[in-house]
Amino acid sequence: MNPTIDLLNNHRSIRTFKEQAVSQEIINTLVTSGQAAATSSFIQACTVIQVENPQKREKLAEYAGNQKYVQSAPVFLVFCADMNRHEIACNMHNEQMKSGFTEQFITATVDCALFAQNVAIAAESLDLGVVYIGGIRNKISDVCDLLDLPKLVYPVFGMCIGYPDQEPEIKPRLPLPIVLKKDSYSNIQDSELLADYDKAIRDYYLSRSGGNKDMSWSEQIAGMLVKEARPHMLDFLQERGYLLK
Amino acid sequence: MNPTIDLLNNHRSIRTFKEQAVSQEIINTLVTSGQAAATSSFIQACTVIQVENPQKREKLAEYAGNQKYVQSAPVFLVFCADMNRHEIACNMHNEQMKSGFTEQFITATVDCALFAQNVAIAAESLDLGVVYIGGIRNKISDVCDLLDLPKLVYPVFGMCIGYPDQEPEIKPRLPLPIVLKKDSYSNIQDSELLADYDKAIRDYYLSRSGGNKDMSWSEQIAGMLVKEARPHMLDFLQERGYLLK
Repeated sequence: MNPTIDLLNNHRSIRTFKEQAVSQEIINTLVTSGQAAATSSFIQACTVIQVENPQKREKLAEYAGNQKYVQSAPVFLVFCADMNRHEIACNMHNEQMKSGFTEQFITATVDCALFAQNVAIAAESLDLGVVYIGGIRNKISDVCDLLDLPKLVYPVFGMCIGYPDQEPEIKPRLPLPIVLKKDSYSNIQDSELLADYDKAIRDYYLSRSGGNKDMSWSEQIAGMLVKEARPHMLDFLQERGYLLK
Repeated sequence: MNPTIDLLNNHRSIRTFKEQAVSQEIINTLVTSGQAAATSSFIQACTVIQVENPQKREKLAEYAGNQKYVQSAPVFLVFCADMNRHEIACNMHNEQMKSGFTEQFITATVDCALFAQNVAIAAESLDLGVVYIGGIRNKISDVCDLLDLPKLVYPVFGMCIGYPDQEPEIKPRLPLPIVLKKDSYSNIQDSELLADYDKAIRDYYLSRSGGNKDMSWSEQIAGMLVKEARPHMLDFLQERGYLLK
């Protein structure tokens, strides 16, 4: 359609990077592009921590479930939902911020995600590769301690960035009629469409693994969602000043 | 730097559209680009409702706080965080999904935001303009009823899309050193940087409003955050099956 749309559709997560460094100028360009994303009521609630310190990188890789590339990637950014500076803004006007609303959690989290997706696209447009690291939420309290995050700041995810040293295949997505509905949510067709998609994903994994990974999408999802999902999260966020009301 | 980065940095919310229609082919292209975004553990937890029905559009515009462009924009999409199809996937394998975790709320919400930001960028690359509509969360229960959203599906935000009939100025963002920190969160400098930024935003509003809007960023934020923020949100989400543990 056009080069930008081709770029979007060509996204693959990159986990193996060349040693080639990424200049601070480029990192600043990426983050500036992130800032240009839409932001809810102009709150600009995203702060990025660029982690350079090797000991901190090692810790983060461990917290993320021993994802080595968190340590070795040329660049590692932690995207934090940040309402701390809004408290500063309120204090500047002798106002008491009303915090703790779930709504604020949504707006700050969405702000971060829009910001990060711009960073990812800017990076890919410069022939860099990226992978989002949700795994830092495994040990989210430890991440806060490591990066000295104050109250009302929480790390949503990390991102590794560098020049790709691999070229993974593009993973097929759900059929369009499952994800795009008109005027009303109807999932009458979904089971049937999912069955077709399951076949496509099974073929994808089989061909990619040389026959070793024999799994459909619904199987993968079912296997994952019968387990608890980071059950510490609600208590953690409430301690940070979120999701209280 | 390059055309994609220029495109990202050129983002403005567009609220006035030409009457020119946007073809279904283009809408499908945008949503397909959305699907190409990263997704947490391949959950693909975003569903888009394209709202065409004029009565539903009218209702949505009203729910969003009488934002007329929600009714009149050529295209209106509602981005829903959707874990409903994951329940279907679990049922296909006779498994009981463990739901209600705050972690799942984060992954589904972030999935939606990354998806939507790709849609926004794809749209802008085709000379369309967009504006995110968080206002649908004002009456989020009514939106669910209107669009027949099942349990475990919640509308995160809407988006108006169309050919721009206005050219607003780019709104200056926070200074880079406030949003990009190294190895550790330090906000020692932030008050001082905010004071400079406040001046820049006051000038921006003054020039844009012909002297009528005299307001800094911190003033705007303080004015907003002394009020309650959609206090119905936590109860609503818990009813939908989210944020229970």
